[in-house]
Amino acid sequence: MRSLVLEYIDEVYHDVLGDREGSVADYIPQLAEADPESFGIALATADGYVYEVGDSRRGFTLQSISKPFTYALALADRGVEAVGAKVGVEPSGEPFNEISLDPAGGQPRNPMINAGAIACASLVRGDTAADRFERIRRFYSQFAGRELSSNEDVYESEHRTGHRNRAIAHLLRAVGVIEEDPEISLEVYFRQCAVEVDCRDLSLMAAGLAAGGVHPASGERLLSPVLTERVLSVMTTCGMYDAAGDWAAQVGLAAKSGVSGGIIAVLPGQIGLAVYSPRLDRYGTSTRGALTCRRLSQELGLHFMHVGRAARSAIRASYDLTGNPSHREHSAAHLDVLRRHGSRAMVYELHGDLLFAATETVIREATARAGELELMIVDTRAVGEVADVSRRLLLGLRDQVLEHGCEVVLVGSGASFDAPQAESVVEHYLIMSDMDTAIAYCEDMLIARHSAE
Amino acid sequence: MRSLVLEYIDEVYHDVLGDREGSVADYIPQLAEADPESFGIALATADGYVYEVGDSRRGFTLQSISKPFTYALALADRGVEAVGAKVGVEPSGEPFNEISLDPAGGQPRNPMINAGAIACASLVRGDTAADRFERIRRFYSQFAGRELSSNEDVYESEHRTGHRNRAIAHLLRAVGVIEEDPEISLEVYFRQCAVEVDCRDLSLMAAGLAAGGVHPASGERLLSPVLTERVLSVMTTCGMYDAAGDWAAQVGLAAKSGVSGGIIAVLPGQIGLAVYSPRLDRYGTSTRGALTCRRLSQELGLHFMHVGRAARSAIRASYDLTGNPSHREHSAAHLDVLRRHGSRAMVYELHGDLLFAATETVIREATARAGELELMIVDTRAVGEVADVSRRLLLGLRDQVLEHGCEVVLVGSGASFDAPQAESVVEHYLIMSDMDTAIAYCEDMLIARHSAE
Amino acid sequence: MRSLVLEYIDEVYHDVLGDREGSVADYIPQLAEADPESFGIALATADGYVYEVGDSRRGFTLQSISKPFTYALALADRGVEAVGAKVGVEPSGEPFNEISLDPAGGQPRNPMINAGAIACASLVRGDTAADRFERIRRFYSQFAGRELSSNEDVYESEHRTGHRNRAIAHLLRAVGVIEEDPEISLEVYFRQCAVEVDCRDLSLMAAGLAAGGVHPASGERLLSPVLTERVLSVMTTCGMYDAAGDWAAQVGLAAKSGVSGGIIAVLPGQIGLAVYSPRLDRYGTSTRGALTCRRLSQELGLHFMHVGRAARSAIRASYDLTGNPSHREHSAAHLDVLRRHGSRAMVYELHGDLLFAATETVIREATARAGELELMIVDTRAVGEVADVSRRLLLGLRDQVLEHGCEVVLVGSGASFDAPQAESVVEHYLIMSDMDTAIAYCEDMLIARHSAE
Amino acid sequence: MRSLVLEYIDEVYHDVLGDREGSVADYIPQLAEADPESFGIALATADGYVYEVGDSRRGFTLQSISKPFTYALALADRGVEAVGAKVGVEPSGEPFNEISLDPAGGQPRNPMINAGAIACASLVRGDTAADRFERIRRFYSQFAGRELSSNEDVYESEHRTGHRNRAIAHLLRAVGVIEEDPEISLEVYFRQCAVEVDCRDLSLMAAGLAAGGVHPASGERLLSPVLTERVLSVMTTCGMYDAAGDWAAQVGLAAKSGVSGGIIAVLPGQIGLAVYSPRLDRYGTSTRGALTCRRLSQELGLHFMHVGRAARSAIRASYDLTGNPSHREHSAAHLDVLRRHGSRAMVYELHGDLLFAATETVIREATARAGELELMIVDTRAVGEVADVSRRLLLGLRDQVLEHGCEVVLVGSGASFDAPQAESVVEHYLIMSDMDTAIAYCEDMLIARHSAE
Repeated sequence: MRSLVLEYIDEVYHDVLGDREGSVADYIPQLAEADPESFGIALATADGYVYEVGDSRRGFTLQSISKPFTYALALADRGVEAVGAKVGVEPSGEPFNEISLDPAGGQPRNPMINAGAIACASLVRGDTAADRFERIRRFYSQFAGRELSSNEDVYESEHRTGHRNRAIAHLLRAVGVIEEDPEISLEVYFRQCAVEVDCRDLSLMAAGLAAGGVHPASGERLLSPVLTERVLSVMTTCGMYDAAGDWAAQVGLAAKSGVSGGIIAVLPGQIGLAVYSPRLDRYGTSTRGALTCRRLSQELGLHFMHVGRAARSAIRASYDLTGNPSHREHSAAHLDVLRRHGSRAMVYELHGDLLFAATETVIREATARAGELELMIVDTRAVGEVADVSRRLLLGLRDQVLEHGCEVVLVGSGASFDAPQAESVVEHYLIMSDMDTAIAYCEDMLIARHSAE
Repeated sequence: MRSLVLEYIDEVYHDVLGDREGSVADYIPQLAEADPESFGIALATADGYVYEVGDSRRGFTLQSISKPFTYALALADRGVEAVGAKVGVEPSGEPFNEISLDPAGGQPRNPMINAGAIACASLVRGDTAADRFERIRRFYSQFAGRELSSNEDVYESEHRTGHRNRAIAHLLRAVGVIEEDPEISLEVYFRQCAVEVDCRDLSLMAAGLAAGGVHPASGERLLSPVLTERVLSVMTTCGMYDAAGDWAAQVGLAAKSGVSGGIIAVLPGQIGLAVYSPRLDRYGTSTRGALTCRRLSQELGLHFMHVGRAARSAIRASYDLTGNPSHREHSAAHLDVLRRHGSRAMVYELHGDLLFAATETVIREATARAGELELMIVDTRAVGEVADVSRRLLLGLRDQVLEHGCEVVLVGSGASFDAPQAESVVEHYLIMSDMDTAIAYCEDMLIARHSAE
Repeated sequence: MRSLVLEYIDEVYHDVLGDREGSVADYIPQLAEADPESFGIALATADGYVYEVGDSRRGFTLQSISKPFTYALALADRGVEAVGAKVGVEPSGEPFNEISLDPAGGQPRNPMINAGAIACASLVRGDTAADRFERIRRFYSQFAGRELSSNEDVYESEHRTGHRNRAIAHLLRAVGVIEEDPEISLEVYFRQCAVEVDCRDLSLMAAGLAAGGVHPASGERLLSPVLTERVLSVMTTCGMYDAAGDWAAQVGLAAKSGVSGGIIAVLPGQIGLAVYSPRLDRYGTSTRGALTCRRLSQELGLHFMHVGRAARSAIRASYDLTGNPSHREHSAAHLDVLRRHGSRAMVYELHGDLLFAATETVIREATARAGELELMIVDTRAVGEVADVSRRLLLGLRDQVLEHGCEVVLVGSGASFDAPQAESVVEHYLIMSDMDTAIAYCEDMLIARHSAE
Repeated sequence: MRSLVLEYIDEVYHDVLGDREGSVADYIPQLAEADPESFGIALATADGYVYEVGDSRRGFTLQSISKPFTYALALADRGVEAVGAKVGVEPSGEPFNEISLDPAGGQPRNPMINAGAIACASLVRGDTAADRFERIRRFYSQFAGRELSSNEDVYESEHRTGHRNRAIAHLLRAVGVIEEDPEISLEVYFRQCAVEVDCRDLSLMAAGLAAGGVHPASGERLLSPVLTERVLSVMTTCGMYDAAGDWAAQVGLAAKSGVSGGIIAVLPGQIGLAVYSPRLDRYGTSTRGALTCRRLSQELGLHFMHVGRAARSAIRASYDLTGNPSHREHSAAHLDVLRRHGSRAMVYELHGDLLFAATETVIREATARAGELELMIVDTRAVGEVADVSRRLLLGLRDQVLEHGCEVVLVGSGASFDAPQAESVVEHYLIMSDMDTAIAYCEDMLIARHSAE
């Protein structure tokens, strides 16, 4: 059966196809030979499904799209502080090939301009240029989910004619940002730029960032969440060079473009988008690529500042035992107890991720009612991620309400509440894996407490 | 009962209180008189609840925090294009009081630097400076949820000594960005900077942006979602001036600081944060304010590139009729039909917002199984927002599966699917308000089709 | 009789007349109304003779040509140090209306850009704008040799529409370069720009600078030599804005152009040149004006780095007494003495200015021969200026050669050797007003010394 | 006998010796090893005499002082236009090692910053780096008057560690300013910087520029006058980097400093000055060197905008025949003719260079009186250079006055009036080599004309 989503993307594809603005990069023959009409789109979901339209399997070289990934690897290899000592994260407001060193410290303004990217290439671990590039190639390949390789012709061409990048590398050596022979950093950089991909690869690489550093298909963790956030932040503020602000306002996706005509765009938690079309605008970005991103962002509602309503509450339902008794048989006396006191035992069904804002609503609601309750059942079976702060707040919640004579029962997998840095929730809560058991426990408790009345 | 969230914020408050870096702005006496020890935090949720710690009710003037709100009003008054012709959205990489006009067009680089903010003050509708300021004051007041007013002493002082801003205004007049007497724009600008607020006000103003332009308590729409996204984007890339990139990477909240010591930070859909403490760092940002934002962002997991897991699926449960029969009495023959064919009628329970990525999972799942099914029940009762694209995709879904002999029943309020720009979903779907009716309908259909076999 | 020099200038005039490049300034109506065909040249010699061709008596406003003269007056009023604390002397490499404040100190880069010129206008003494402008007007008038006045229409127009200059003035107030109400500085500046002149006036103003600060016709001192040197230096490095280096290399004249189409060029000690033609090139300089200056500089050999041969020696003739006896009657014995010892008395005829290099040749020659001589006659009647260092060296010369038994007689006016800061040469030297007396004295001395032999 | 000039310089030397500001360049060991106390001064006159004080024979490397000389050679090899297409002549207002490419054209701003100097090194003719450097070395040696050579250690050190210069060279290659392998240009540049000189050498090199491109001692022409003017102009506006304007205003000498502690300063037509002392100020200029230049300029009156009085008139004496008859015997009748008509024959004694301004005074005087005269004797025996324009004006003078019946006789060497591009003055004028002959001719003419009266 045909895919509606694919049809949707296909429609955008055909609309954008008519655009023939811009011109193909021609500073090396290999780029100049690209078919200007070539146009492909691939959209990967955060669980790894890829929609493809047009020339989505046509190969091209990564060029600047390599930058966020090498930055990521440098961060993983050296840590945020060490990399930060060499490369800033401020937008430069200047074109990609500007030298843009910080007037005070002398570092490149950010890792998305060539100067910063070359510096990052010097920071990836590896004794030789070959070792280091191999680690980079493997890292990219893991994101793409297949073995990628570098185009030797493109590499040779760029290595031979990349005078400006060579200038930048020597300047970085002069100011001490690069501490090795700049020719090594350059070799690594030129090779990473020459790695061949297609739109499908790129969409998966983008989806890996969208998924917080996890390969969307395999689930393998490739980059820590904190570093992924950093990479995406820097893509947001610096990825589109001197058009970064306009891109953030209009498209609202963390993005990176390459001079070969590729572009990736990431909506955290949701999608990775890749477009390829070699005609470039004056910022060095694929014209059709930018148009496609803008169209899809606006029509698919992908803007990173878009506010959904659901984000606002984690409690999808709440009710007391009078409204949801167990199916067990009870004596009349017990039924009377449950009828009279059932409203003192409350069930909260949570859903979504228990990030701070969501957890806050739970805590607020629970503490507001705790005085009148004897028991709370918190159903966490539909919950996704539990943030550290949420774990801590929930631990605190039980301590707090217990002081007022109210017990808390957790329904769900205790595992999802475990984290190395927090004391185990398991030890604090009565954890039950199914709701029936929890409700039965709850009824029994009410009966035990109130039968003598 | 004490609030755990408040305790949490209070802990951060006490940790940060020890910091005495920076110094109070002293370019006018009114600012110089601020108590350097003063320190308040207010955190408002997107539904309008405010947590307050410290001097959260101490008044101070908005100063640059006024900029995003006047920008918003200018956008609402003139439209994105007209404002864009006068003020860019690119980060300048320069301090707040830099003149930073675009070398090509002559416009201010963005509305968060003084030049752009003064230009915005000239773009708000109003025949006189007084009219225009009154509109601005009312706009701010709506966000704050109470009547705000301008501090005359501060206004007078800034008006008298604001030589650099006066220089900027005349330069804007020279390049044609301001088309009126610059003294009028300046009067409006100086007055808006002098509007008095406290942390509580600011947190609600921030929460209004977090809520997509809706007042968090009253639910009144103050700004369209699209313009709110734009304002938040520009705050993200330009709000913290020459530290914007570092702020995005480390704090990851759309933010704006003022020289009086205030700072607001926004996590779309979730929270609005306000801090006040008058000692400033070299970027002109409250040192304690920045520390507080960084602490809260990291510990509460507020970074805008943070990826929750729940965002990834809209289907919270799915099952066929064999697993969830109605409680109605059926004849043995009918029961046999249901037993044999129940698996050809599938229920999908959706939750969360039906934004693109979520809807895509639904569509993908549904179309994948449509060939084997005779009926789908889509339970949308727990759904939040339905994006335009989702409405369109769902409409397409029914058309598509019907071709394969599969009917779709929607459970929920048809209203939430209505939108002016889309054909009514109601006309396409069988919409039922409760699940029991839908399941009964479904059983009857299976029985009708298969009883003759 | 027709003037050959005039014919020469006329020839250049007619050659350049064909050029119609550039366009008339049109930012105020008064400038836009200028006849684009208008073209005048005036060349004033350092003694005040003026050659005029074309529209040399057509009036126009000074505009930026006022800058060096107001700078001169500010220097005279406040001193080099006080002015230097407010305005630099470095070329900015930027257009005339750039704000160009020094990143470190905040001062305008130089007094030839608008920012520096407005600062200078604030530094001229005078209690009110009117007083101050009157002093400026009088200063200009002294240089022109007639009463100049400001064009009210032009002043009003620039005052009303000079937004960029107003911006600059307020910015200067903001950084403390201007310490008064910037509107006062602006009024003075706009008025000085609107002073009306013609080419004849300008050529005399330029010739006054060429003559070291002395009015070429009246001989009245208007500016000290040291300040004149400073003004001319700053015109050389900064007068032609971002084309200063090219102008220095190609034209080699200290110069200043104005947007009304005027231009002055100065060759120190020699000529003051003025051209008027309102069509401007992209630097805001009269196209015909620049062409005329280049042609005249190249063909008349006016380049400031041109090296004449004559500058190299101050001794125009030297001979001993045997070759130039007096016409007195001598006894045979005395004649014999003179014949035998005449070569021990040497006459040096000096000419030109006794600046250092010239004096050095005299001193060198004299000390080289002093051991063999008994007497030197130094004929200074044809000498122009005597530099302080030359006075000191000549004083030293006599002391030195006297030790070796050699007397020095000076022929000429002792007055030209007097200077407040040096001990009087008169006291050291035997000074005689005519050569005959000196030679007679010399002969007598030889005879007295050697007759006994 | 001791030299007074030397004493004078020695006095300045001892005054400046006390200054210990600044610090020795230490970016390569060879420079760091320089004795910070070392201090030498050499002042060469335009005729090649050298005054030396202190460590004037201590060797050091040229460094940036090589720049004007290589620029000169590039100009000589390629022409002004070709070099101008690669390297501008505008001051950059930036430090020496700034990259300072023109934002529009991409060329280095001027040949005195490293970028421009490396470009010049690529423009000197020569097939290999060795050939080219040999030509440069020989050119420098000709100026110094002895064979200079490059310090291999310094060369090696700079070649190995000159990362910034290497960066610059590759950038120049990237923008097409350098068209060869940048490593070749760099080798040449590093070698020229490492050429060893002492103050005496430098003073002669400077004096060669002062003498208009002629070696001051040998009189050999090394560079055309026009190119020498250009080199000196560029040294004036750009030689002292970001302190160029201040240097022009305070010192007023075309100058160039080097990071090894050397500095040269040139007063055209007069002197070449060299100072060596390795402690540098923040501009990279020898502190004692700058102090010495300033002191000597001010006290010796060397400022290039200084105006001497003598420059103003070329006529050192004028008289008619009644005041200066020949010593010939005349008949009474003839004497009567001479008495009555002698005032109709005028003698003008000229001196100095006949540059334009001087010639103009002659022409003006002569044409003013031509109507009343029958004969003019122009005595040019004391004249130095005769500019082309002067030749042309004098030719015109005779044609003009002959029309009014006035003959012109030239006394002096006709040779000095010959120039390839002008018709020979000899053919137009009656040229006589001695004054007696001229006066006799003149008397005879008057007698012949008027005896019949």
